Amino acid sequence: MSSEKARRTELSTFGEFGLIDHLTSLLKYKQESTQTGVGDDAAVIDLGDRYMLLSTDLLLEGIQFDLTYTPLRHLGYKAVVTGISDIYAMNGTPTQITIGLGISKRFSVEMLDELYDGIRLACDTYNVDLVGGDTTSSLTGLTISTSTVGFVDKQKITFRSGAKENDLICVSGNLGAAFMGLQILEREKRVFEGNANVQPQLEGFDYVLQRQLKPEAQKDIIDLLAELGIQPTSMIDLSDGLASDTLQICKSSKVGARIYLDKMPIASETFRAGEEMNFDPAIAALNGGEDYELLFTAPIELHDQLKNLAGIDVIGHITAESKGAYLITPDGGEIPLQAQGWGAKE
Amino acid sequence: MSSEKARRTELSTFGEFGLIDHLTSLLKYKQESTQTGVGDDAAVIDLGDRYMLLSTDLLLEGIQFDLTYTPLRHLGYKAVVTGISDIYAMNGTPTQITIGLGISKRFSVEMLDELYDGIRLACDTYNVDLVGGDTTSSLTGLTISTSTVGFVDKQKITFRSGAKENDLICVSGNLGAAFMGLQILEREKRVFEGNANVQPQLEGFDYVLQRQLKPEAQKDIIDLLAELGIQPTSMIDLSDGLASDTLQICKSSKVGARIYLDKMPIASETFRAGEEMNFDPAIAALNGGEDYELLFTAPIELHDQLKNLAGIDVIGHITAESKGAYLITPDGGEIPLQAQGWGAKE
Repeated sequence: MSSEKARRTELSTFGEFGLIDHLTSLLKYKQESTQTGVGDDAAVIDLGDRYMLLSTDLLLEGIQFDLTYTPLRHLGYKAVVTGISDIYAMNGTPTQITIGLGISKRFSVEMLDELYDGIRLACDTYNVDLVGGDTTSSLTGLTISTSTVGFVDKQKITFRSGAKENDLICVSGNLGAAFMGLQILEREKRVFEGNANVQPQLEGFDYVLQRQLKPEAQKDIIDLLAELGIQPTSMIDLSDGLASDTLQICKSSKVGARIYLDKMPIASETFRAGEEMNFDPAIAALNGGEDYELLFTAPIELHDQLKNLAGIDVIGHITAESKGAYLITPDGGEIPLQAQGWGAKE
Repeated sequence: MSSEKARRTELSTFGEFGLIDHLTSLLKYKQESTQTGVGDDAAVIDLGDRYMLLSTDLLLEGIQFDLTYTPLRHLGYKAVVTGISDIYAMNGTPTQITIGLGISKRFSVEMLDELYDGIRLACDTYNVDLVGGDTTSSLTGLTISTSTVGFVDKQKITFRSGAKENDLICVSGNLGAAFMGLQILEREKRVFEGNANVQPQLEGFDYVLQRQLKPEAQKDIIDLLAELGIQPTSMIDLSDGLASDTLQICKSSKVGARIYLDKMPIASETFRAGEEMNFDPAIAALNGGEDYELLFTAPIELHDQLKNLAGIDVIGHITAESKGAYLITPDGGEIPLQAQGWGAKE
């Protein structure tokens, strides 16, 4: 109730990551069990014989999801996958999740049942237990908060900070599909809002829609690497796009990177959706986000082994920090990798 | 985008706890380490040699807090205390917390700095590390999600479910102050909205305002009980009011309860605020919530020891389930304890 004129610095002054750095810069750790805090896919707590991992995600209606075209069952599934993906990115095994829900009066019990169907399906698929949460009323949109718990052997854990010069940069699956799926859905929403009798034209885009609406976490990749005895030097899950997430590894590891445009794995369905939407699929791969694939680095000695693995592509290599982070075009051009800043998705 | 007419059951059909029971009724636990899930102050994960506790809270603007009269520093402090209090309620020691923030554009960096000042102060006060979180933009109000981690020895943990017939019902500190503080603040908000030149009349209500705006968790009580070797048979933190929280213990323990009205500890400042606001402080104690005191049960053999402890009052006893849960008035009248249902705070 003070009428004092306070100094006001806009949030956009910092990028999203700059803002978090700023806010957490004064923190001091007091607990011996705190291994690492802010700045990786999950917080790491030292249990003596192994590490516990804890990842927190906040999903807000209108920002992370749009209920006009997101079935609640898929939203529940995706909320769980988002958290689980962070645990895999630390090379861990997710075991438990808690879910907090803020629900407005426009929700019915049937709607929540659908949401929980998706939550339960994801928990069953990934062998994770829903162990608690908090349910509150909300004045506005649906709010979903998740906290995911996992465990990892001390010698197996991968941080963002372990990439070394000359390491290979690898990625699982393919990129940009989730973002192209979002573009298709947004187009249909605009059509629908213009004329409610028009049927959505979603046929033929099943793959990219599935990647957007019901993404999966990369359990199989983690299992495969473990089976082959491959220990990534660093890892992150691709939630913000290849450019932004590569820069996170560069920042944490104090290294540079070269990513080759023509090595980025992009599915034919993503190309087709790109043609339909007149949108460059490479941009979707670099900046679209929500792929929930794994981006990791590995020693160059593993090149022959990695390049022959189904489901994994070698897309570049780590350089000295001073050399910066660039995308290399087929003609040898160098384009600086750029993160999407705070509020880019607003 | 479906125009199908779906069946619609209003959320109010269930109470808040009924809704959670309904949504989680189909869950099956798959992980051996899942000790207990939904239905206590915190989820309990078995680490072999001890338990890990995980509590999740969701605080939404307009529901759990009103920024018209809540200083951001206090809000940050209270957000941390809320989570920590759940860990103490399991007789555990809180160690780490993660915080997710949904922030709209009306927030400045200075406002977030204030919020984080409060978060940091609470973390320092309770020896807890802030180890991670998630920051996203929000289209509407401020959203705060917290996940609090703690640890507890297996023989020390207290569940809600351990209360036995004839156990004493005990409470720490005093009740109803936070709710009376809220009433004072709400009154001043109405005055302020009517005429911005009127100064809030908050003088003389420091204690109840402090209990509302900057509550503390009951670390000292947990330490005291440990020191004296007193192991509560059940425990819960008073976040929803004495009536609702007593009923939670009754439900989990399959017991009944008798609470004596004239034994409920209520501070003189709470009585004074009640007079000012023409509101019965006993109602504030029973249904107000947000006291963050501890409600626990203990074997009747400890009566002499407990009744002489500063900061702890014996307010009733546990009965057989068939006898129900009642408040006993000084003239021997019996009033059924009633929980505040879903949406009561809307």
